[in-house]
Amino acid sequence: MLQKSDYSSHEKHYVAIDCIIFGFDGEQLKLLLVKRGFEPCKGCWSLMGGFVRTIENLGQAASRVLFELTGLHDIFLEQLHTYGETERDSQARVISVAYYALIKIDDFNETTDNIFDAKWFPIDQRPVLIFDHNMMVDKALRRLRRKAAIQPIGFELLPEKFTLSQLQKLYEAIYGMAIDKRNFRKRVLNMGVLSRLDEIDKLSSRRGAYLYTLDKHKYDCFVDKGQTFLIK
Amino acid sequence: MLQKSDYSSHEKHYVAIDCIIFGFDGEQLKLLLVKRGFEPCKGCWSLMGGFVRTIENLGQAASRVLFELTGLHDIFLEQLHTYGETERDSQARVISVAYYALIKIDDFNETTDNIFDAKWFPIDQRPVLIFDHNMMVDKALRRLRRKAAIQPIGFELLPEKFTLSQLQKLYEAIYGMAIDKRNFRKRVLNMGVLSRLDEIDKLSSRRGAYLYTLDKHKYDCFVDKGQTFLIK
Repeated sequence: MLQKSDYSSHEKHYVAIDCIIFGFDGEQLKLLLVKRGFEPCKGCWSLMGGFVRTIENLGQAASRVLFELTGLHDIFLEQLHTYGETERDSQARVISVAYYALIKIDDFNETTDNIFDAKWFPIDQRPVLIFDHNMMVDKALRRLRRKAAIQPIGFELLPEKFTLSQLQKLYEAIYGMAIDKRNFRKRVLNMGVLSRLDEIDKLSSRRGAYLYTLDKHKYDCFVDKGQTFLIK
Repeated sequence: MLQKSDYSSHEKHYVAIDCIIFGFDGEQLKLLLVKRGFEPCKGCWSLMGGFVRTIENLGQAASRVLFELTGLHDIFLEQLHTYGETERDSQARVISVAYYALIKIDDFNETTDNIFDAKWFPIDQRPVLIFDHNMMVDKALRRLRRKAAIQPIGFELLPEKFTLSQLQKLYEAIYGMAIDKRNFRKRVLNMGVLSRLDEIDKLSSRRGAYLYTLDKHKYDCFVDKGQTFLIK
């Protein structure tokens, strides 16, 4: 085989972005889905997606797609996997680069351009999705579970100030299992990456609970030392 | 924004595959590179790559690209990441899906169609590569190190029968550090996923050493129980 210099002899492809958008409402881990407005599969539930433009890199395309749906900038967004089965979309050959996003549900403005018929679903009550989007969600969930065990990415789903109970509920929601309270608190506090504020949250319990924030500086030191955020 | 039904209004892109090919020669972890035969960057060292065809999915394209260089089928191949910076290739906008492959160096037939000017480089003596290929190699190496610590993917780099010394050398090569022999043997044998054969390897030492193989069935049970291959 000869190495070819002329790219124009090669075929081009549609390249799309699909976003798996996770949110947390204080109790449940949720997934933001849209109702597809066109064929094939009009009216079915789908991940939010869009086509990559020539002038934008993949991360920019993913941010734009996410912004068009949520009106939010500066969201945690990470590339997950690229899906390229030839028959994955019946209308044409489309290669899709999947990204997963973590957003604070309170930040999401429901009044944003509702053309997409967007809706939050609890992760364990999500409907069947079009194409290979179910596989994408399964993979994103595995990634979230793995990452949340070793990095503090779960914090992207919490308000900036949170109680230890909220943090525990988040981890219980991510893993779909109960976590022992004493053990959880001990491990989290021992990591030394949280700062306790002089503020009490009185909404969640009568006695009230201290609010905490993630100390990014302490966390970076923690990671630099090769330590992992093993919460589970 | 309206959801559009007509895909043809969207732009198409060249989509390439780039392969990070790792091998192990019994002493060193190596990387298989090719000399680029055309502009831009003719004569520079590069990962082996090729363009995705309309009729093949991404995994098939990666297998084909790998076969064209090595003449090998059924190679361990895993998708790594997709690179889509708009300016990453100066000739045109090309989105590249990177895969990493693990091959036994002995299987590699050097006489295979040598149009590519392929050469093995020790991982710590690799040349500077074109485009974003250096980033791809760095990411692949991180992935290999992470995965080899929790899954037996390192075995893809060994002959089917190997001594414990060879296995240890492989892990030392992957992590670029010495590993304590007693501790390593204890941990590996305790996992119960290796089968000791009734064969002695007399090449590596005068006394000889037992040969082992990975027992895939035992390994699958090990993984099903949620246990991890923590060798490092």
